[in-house]
Amino acid sequence: MVPFFNPKSIAVIGASRDPHKPGHVIFRNLLEGFKGKVYPVNPNAEEILGKPCYPFISKLPEKPDLAVIAIPAPLVPGVLDEVGKAGIKAAIIISAGFSEIGNLQLEKRLVKTAKKHGIRILGPNCLGIYDPYTGLDTFFLPRYKLERPKAGNIAFISQSGALGSVMLDWMAMKGYRISRFISYGNAADIDEADLLEFLEKDRKTRVICAYFEGVREGRRFYQIAKRVSRKKPIIALKAGNTEAGGRATLSHTGSLAGSPQVYQAAFKQAGVIQAGGLEEMFDFARTLATQPKPRGPRVLIITNGGGFGVLATDAVVQAGLKLSRLSHPEKLKKQFPPHVVISNPMDLTGDADAERYRKALQVALKDPQVDMILLISLFQIPTLTAEIVDVIQEFSGRKPLVVVAAGGRYTEALKKPLEDSGIPCFSYPERAAKALSVLWKGK
Amino acid sequence: MVPFFNPKSIAVIGASRDPHKPGHVIFRNLLEGFKGKVYPVNPNAEEILGKPCYPFISKLPEKPDLAVIAIPAPLVPGVLDEVGKAGIKAAIIISAGFSEIGNLQLEKRLVKTAKKHGIRILGPNCLGIYDPYTGLDTFFLPRYKLERPKAGNIAFISQSGALGSVMLDWMAMKGYRISRFISYGNAADIDEADLLEFLEKDRKTRVICAYFEGVREGRRFYQIAKRVSRKKPIIALKAGNTEAGGRATLSHTGSLAGSPQVYQAAFKQAGVIQAGGLEEMFDFARTLATQPKPRGPRVLIITNGGGFGVLATDAVVQAGLKLSRLSHPEKLKKQFPPHVVISNPMDLTGDADAERYRKALQVALKDPQVDMILLISLFQIPTLTAEIVDVIQEFSGRKPLVVVAAGGRYTEALKKPLEDSGIPCFSYPERAAKALSVLWKGK
Repeated sequence: MVPFFNPKSIAVIGASRDPHKPGHVIFRNLLEGFKGKVYPVNPNAEEILGKPCYPFISKLPEKPDLAVIAIPAPLVPGVLDEVGKAGIKAAIIISAGFSEIGNLQLEKRLVKTAKKHGIRILGPNCLGIYDPYTGLDTFFLPRYKLERPKAGNIAFISQSGALGSVMLDWMAMKGYRISRFISYGNAADIDEADLLEFLEKDRKTRVICAYFEGVREGRRFYQIAKRVSRKKPIIALKAGNTEAGGRATLSHTGSLAGSPQVYQAAFKQAGVIQAGGLEEMFDFARTLATQPKPRGPRVLIITNGGGFGVLATDAVVQAGLKLSRLSHPEKLKKQFPPHVVISNPMDLTGDADAERYRKALQVALKDPQVDMILLISLFQIPTLTAEIVDVIQEFSGRKPLVVVAAGGRYTEALKKPLEDSGIPCFSYPERAAKALSVLWKGK
Repeated sequence: MVPFFNPKSIAVIGASRDPHKPGHVIFRNLLEGFKGKVYPVNPNAEEILGKPCYPFISKLPEKPDLAVIAIPAPLVPGVLDEVGKAGIKAAIIISAGFSEIGNLQLEKRLVKTAKKHGIRILGPNCLGIYDPYTGLDTFFLPRYKLERPKAGNIAFISQSGALGSVMLDWMAMKGYRISRFISYGNAADIDEADLLEFLEKDRKTRVICAYFEGVREGRRFYQIAKRVSRKKPIIALKAGNTEAGGRATLSHTGSLAGSPQVYQAAFKQAGVIQAGGLEEMFDFARTLATQPKPRGPRVLIITNGGGFGVLATDAVVQAGLKLSRLSHPEKLKKQFPPHVVISNPMDLTGDADAERYRKALQVALKDPQVDMILLISLFQIPTLTAEIVDVIQEFSGRKPLVVVAAGGRYTEALKKPLEDSGIPCFSYPERAAKALSVLWKGK
């Protein structure tokens, strides 16, 4: 799998001068961001974006490690043969028009050609790879429309390219980070199980997210997932969970969705965490990627808003967790103003300042009956200055901690540095509590 | 209730020169935004923000319609007596320190004084009112930290001030609109039932959202809610739904949360829609406030991303709705390129432009088997220009329509004008499908 992630040079076959064509956007993005060499290949252009263009692969000045192919589907097998003759062993095939629209024969020819030359294929009908560490980026989507997240430790593999890419755009906006993104489309060769095996050994990846509609080889996927999930959490979102949804997957990726019950049971046995939706998948991932393992299921809720404290209490219980009982409430009462509620939720009330949060966090860290902390901080409260961000960061990494802060632009601005420093931030208690429950049960 | 919403003049008792004090922030916000007259009252200041300050209510040049009181709790009953003597009939008491911390006696004195003079009280221990139509704004939270939403037709009443206000901040950021916001705190006089009665007749309000932890008079609330819900949808978020959550409400607002089963049954019989969380409450409200009534439960999904189409299919079925069957699929096939999937989801595929969406929406509008439209549009796709916004707006208001568009800044920027023109936009199919199901079942 290495040439897919650490290529030194790439050939873009189908690079184009027309800014609306995928081959143009891919070439431009690589030119701007990729750390190695990029060669455009197109018999109808002499120069693209100021770079000399090569008519055929055989004319390239060196053998690239990776070929990215974005040409009409019927031409792909022929070109892949040339790729093989040139000795290139890895190809990402962006082109659509294969098994997903019933062209099974064309896809078979593709696979046969690849096998003949020992080429590994990603795709066809995919967006390929975004790797923030090397700048490899085969999306045919311009960056002003679709931003890319920064480098982190969450990998995301997606059968659907469009779905995966808009999630990256969303992650970039939220400040969430990623290690590798792989859209593998029809999985004519490399499939979800292969990708899990690669990510198992990938040092940049700590948590794996996967969106798919069906798996190619159920038994093999199950066995690999079971092994990998012991080392790294795998969070799966499986679409097509209803009968109608199952039918819809057929016309999308041609996947047999299979019975939801069968999948659910297999996931559970394989130690794969199931997400209920796209946001939830990344809620779980961010929390698993950043927070230490809790010793138990007991959560202390700290808040400066009573209503949010009540909603969080409901959410913690409904997520199957327990509320911590504070070890020495009488002693604590003396350390706080009399109107502070020394209980769980610990309500610091609407005049809490950053210092009161510091004290409360010290209590939570020391108390052996507190396994995890759900910290609610309504940043709009007048007594609370932006110092609260520093206070929360001080306590980061020592006990599992998630932050809930709801509001508008001011609140979002304060949440960004927290999220950046590895503290999962949520807007609403329900999502935070679910993420904590996965942290406890999932691992 | 009128003096609470259409006062011509307001006295701010406890107006202060100290920018950190609630009385200062309230006075400043009113001075900047309120359309009528505002008088600061404080015996220790001669001038506040360049305006002459009055030592007592009796010294005011005219009788104000409304008194806003933000002074230490023990002083409130005495001041309320003065308010009564001056003939003012409405008071918002911001001050905390009454029944919510066990000072039952003080609250009783307050109510007695109010009754003696025939004053209606909102509060104490509340944030009061934000009314975008008159500029009445009694929040002691500065606008740079907490933005206010624009004028719309969704009313929001909240027992918890902090919770309510941060939701307003969030709504402002999202571009959601509001008719009235009322934080009623301890409900010493005016309670949730009174507010429902007021909103029933309020022409600016089309949908009512309510957050509470308990109701003061169950039977009366039930009867009023049952009547009001026939005219306007009421969406309730009741906190304290678990045993632990119920205990937490006691130390927050002193409410007896009551059995969740009893509440749920009563809500259902009274026609009150129950939300599972804060975001969901406003998902339902935005959809009910803007969309026409559907004729049936059949939804057509239109998409340019297959994966999102599959997730939406699952979501529609799981929300208890049905998938439309298109009336004349063969005829439609001729109108679209061959790779477009004429089914449900109707997958316009990744090269769809705005014109293809226009055609698909025309089909959806005409087809009698389509009751509602769930339109997914991944705006990042190269062939889709910003024209898509105009195309969607063209079809607005004729059949129930919600939009799903996931992504980052570019996507959010395109969603804003849609949301502004009354089309509910969501990031994920699950929330959109739930909102449609409430549109169908809730009314």
